[in-house]
Amino acid sequence: MLPGSLVLALPDWMIALGEGKICPDPEQRMRFVVDLSRRNIEEGSGGPFGAAVFEIESGRLVAAGVNRVVPARSGIAHAEILALALAQQRVGCYDLGAAGMPGHEIVCSTEPCLMCLGAILWSGVRRVVCAARGDDAGAVGFDEGPKPVAWVEELARRGIEVVRDVCRDEAVAVLRAYATGGGPIYNARCGAADRV
Amino acid sequence: MLPGSLVLALPDWMIALGEGKICPDPEQRMRFVVDLSRRNIEEGSGGPFGAAVFEIESGRLVAAGVNRVVPARSGIAHAEILALALAQQRVGCYDLGAAGMPGHEIVCSTEPCLMCLGAILWSGVRRVVCAARGDDAGAVGFDEGPKPVAWVEELARRGIEVVRDVCRDEAVAVLRAYATGGGPIYNARCGAADRV
Repeated sequence: MLPGSLVLALPDWMIALGEGKICPDPEQRMRFVVDLSRRNIEEGSGGPFGAAVFEIESGRLVAAGVNRVVPARSGIAHAEILALALAQQRVGCYDLGAAGMPGHEIVCSTEPCLMCLGAILWSGVRRVVCAARGDDAGAVGFDEGPKPVAWVEELARRGIEVVRDVCRDEAVAVLRAYATGGGPIYNARCGAADRV
Repeated sequence: MLPGSLVLALPDWMIALGEGKICPDPEQRMRFVVDLSRRNIEEGSGGPFGAAVFEIESGRLVAAGVNRVVPARSGIAHAEILALALAQQRVGCYDLGAAGMPGHEIVCSTEPCLMCLGAILWSGVRRVVCAARGDDAGAVGFDEGPKPVAWVEELARRGIEVVRDVCRDEAVAVLRAYATGGGPIYNARCGAADRV
């Protein structure tokens, strides 16, 4: 039989984390996400990226994700993809902006790569909050892909606000700690399943 | 507890399909994929898109996917995302271009959207074969997102060849049949969980 089910699991240490969590303050939301990215490398459970979906008004945490590419053997297992898909499954709709639903935002420890930018477009979130810049990820070797130069404006044109540089220094410190620690910088397009 | 596992399943009718399938001929591979897209709308199991990962040389089918956005309640459940992620889990590595592995290609019934373009970049495939153009999907209302105009060249620059217009007419016929049949054209960024 062909493989019929895709299963992507978060690391065990995340499961009990954050249930019932409410973060009214935007910086508090980002600190939660940067903490996820840091803990993910400390636990050896993936790359230095975290993301979470919150209800914008209430600050209620809906779902969270961390990068799981290497341990989950899945190039799509970016933090944003997991947070968005888990949030959609939790609310029971592919559209987090559906009528009658509270507005949602995604909070990301690093600006989205090309794939995650697309996933954000289709997700229904109304706001994207970022800590580290794409260039910060590039500086330690990660490739963001050929994103439109005006990606912030492209999202704005579709009714999605972008807030940048929230807790940027803390997130950059996690990226650097990962690179300094010799964590794998996977850029699969280069054809090498290890450091490039 | 926060949601801890993402599960995306293919429709039941696909499970027994294609096991042990070998398609030496590139057109035969595309016909298999366009048939998936057609059957997906006939069965009411998702949108009019199919994709599959093959070993380039042998023509062995590794994994296949169809669009499952609406039934799976997941904006990331595009055919390409499922085919790539299932192939990666089957070979046991996030990188389908890893050393010692046969070269892989993805065959898509329609050119990839922005998200899937990113997923292709990170997947390790060496070739992308497409039937319908992005504009064909746009003509029935689907949004491909702000892809780089020179996306084919962007892939080429990263060692990924793109082959276009294979069985394009057959794939366009499926897109039109879906739109004519009133299938949902989900563009979640518009904030409506139904037809826009």
